[in-house]
Amino acid sequence: MKKSDIYYWRSTAIKMAEQVQKAIAPLVGKEEASEIIRMGADGTPTKLIDLIAEDETINVLENTGRPVTLISEEIGYLKIGEEEDSEPQIIFVVDPLDGTTNAIKNIPFYGISIAIAEYHSSNVLPSLNDVKMGFVKNFATDDIYEALRGHGARLNNKKIKPSKQKSLEESSMGAFIYGTKFPKVDNICRIIRRMRILGSVALELSYVANGAYDAFMDLRGNLRVVDIAASKLIVEEAGGIVTTEKGDPLNGLLNVKERTSLIAAGNKQLHHEIMKALEVI
Amino acid sequence: MKKSDIYYWRSTAIKMAEQVQKAIAPLVGKEEASEIIRMGADGTPTKLIDLIAEDETINVLENTGRPVTLISEEIGYLKIGEEEDSEPQIIFVVDPLDGTTNAIKNIPFYGISIAIAEYHSSNVLPSLNDVKMGFVKNFATDDIYEALRGHGARLNNKKIKPSKQKSLEESSMGAFIYGTKFPKVDNICRIIRRMRILGSVALELSYVANGAYDAFMDLRGNLRVVDIAASKLIVEEAGGIVTTEKGDPLNGLLNVKERTSLIAAGNKQLHHEIMKALEVI
Repeated sequence: MKKSDIYYWRSTAIKMAEQVQKAIAPLVGKEEASEIIRMGADGTPTKLIDLIAEDETINVLENTGRPVTLISEEIGYLKIGEEEDSEPQIIFVVDPLDGTTNAIKNIPFYGISIAIAEYHSSNVLPSLNDVKMGFVKNFATDDIYEALRGHGARLNNKKIKPSKQKSLEESSMGAFIYGTKFPKVDNICRIIRRMRILGSVALELSYVANGAYDAFMDLRGNLRVVDIAASKLIVEEAGGIVTTEKGDPLNGLLNVKERTSLIAAGNKQLHHEIMKALEVI
Repeated sequence: MKKSDIYYWRSTAIKMAEQVQKAIAPLVGKEEASEIIRMGADGTPTKLIDLIAEDETINVLENTGRPVTLISEEIGYLKIGEEEDSEPQIIFVVDPLDGTTNAIKNIPFYGISIAIAEYHSSNVLPSLNDVKMGFVKNFATDDIYEALRGHGARLNNKKIKPSKQKSLEESSMGAFIYGTKFPKVDNICRIIRRMRILGSVALELSYVANGAYDAFMDLRGNLRVVDIAASKLIVEEAGGIVTTEKGDPLNGLLNVKERTSLIAAGNKQLHHEIMKALEVI
């Protein structure tokens, strides 16, 4: 991507975060926010607050006047503007509101996830490997986590590093351990120093990037790949690790049906400890 | 308690919350906040941010010029001012900073818990039953939950009610299920719709009072009774239920060594469902 394009799409992403934040603000903590409007492209019901958030992302992209593709939970896949066949496509992979339930209940932990991928249509289907930039904004605190592939990760424009904690016994870990058939999660519950489930995977993954969490895992098996497209890059650019629950690379396709589990850690040793505790290795 | 005293001590509590919030603000998200200063009265190490929070609570009480007793994690038991033997004592039971680890990591979920008990020294030792008012403030959002015994519970001055959800399968529940020897917690993990561990018990209990959570439990067995002195009253005054992990009434003594587990729910039926899932009944 050209430097001028990086600047352009970065400012688009930041504007998108701002606009979505404003659009949903009147609904936060309100019962009507959870009204079911229709079924989303991913096969789950769309709530009013999610719809309003997504409408705003479309708005922002339409206003750029540039050709761009949007991949998002409710709408699936949307081409905006015309492009030449020979040009690389810009794909915005957006979760307009991660932590919907928190927003509805006014639990201060929800935000937006925006990944920007560049994709040559002569290639195979676009995947997590094509993501060039990632943005995650916490709407309740205004914190912005971001990464540019090859150039590190930042929180509010300051470079961030993950935790160096190597011992699981001493770790603080985000861990979605309910609704899973994974057999050995109680090992983690027994060993871990401190466990959190805050309810927004994009934000909680970002916490691994700056060391607020030493590690994070989601073993429910139904995490949308598109929802972690930004935060995975942020963790990796900070220097952390994100894999599947088996320790394999996570290179899922960028479509709303693709789902996964994941394990993330600030460093290799802690990742290894988690895998051992889960008896994967 | 006389009406004029209720007003007086309520405004003292609200001022205390404000002052502590201001005092710790410069340390939120800072590494130095977690510096260990000394051992607290409860036998656990005191961090700098906790000490600053507690110093401020003492300050506020000293400035009232009235006789009052403070019970707090770090200092234990502190008599402020002189009182006549015949008069009922006012006891402030304060957790100056609940969610210390979140505050240090700038995870937006930490606050203060203030319970005000009235105690006649001719009685047995002061217990949760003597608590007349409870205040819990979320420092990251400025939300204030409060209750006056016999007069209901409020969030930001509006009356609140707990959830009517009766089915565990449909419930959102805060659940500290790590670091516990309780045998059947994985039943809850399997059944529950949505689980959270936000890391501040006083605030999470308050979430049961206004229905942000359908239920809450902490099965670690090391929850300080003084830390839930305010939020237990808030849940009960809203119409919810708080018991021990065995379903017994929770009437612990107001001292910093007393510890417990607990189960709270918005209604009797859901409480019963949780007890069944834990195979307590």
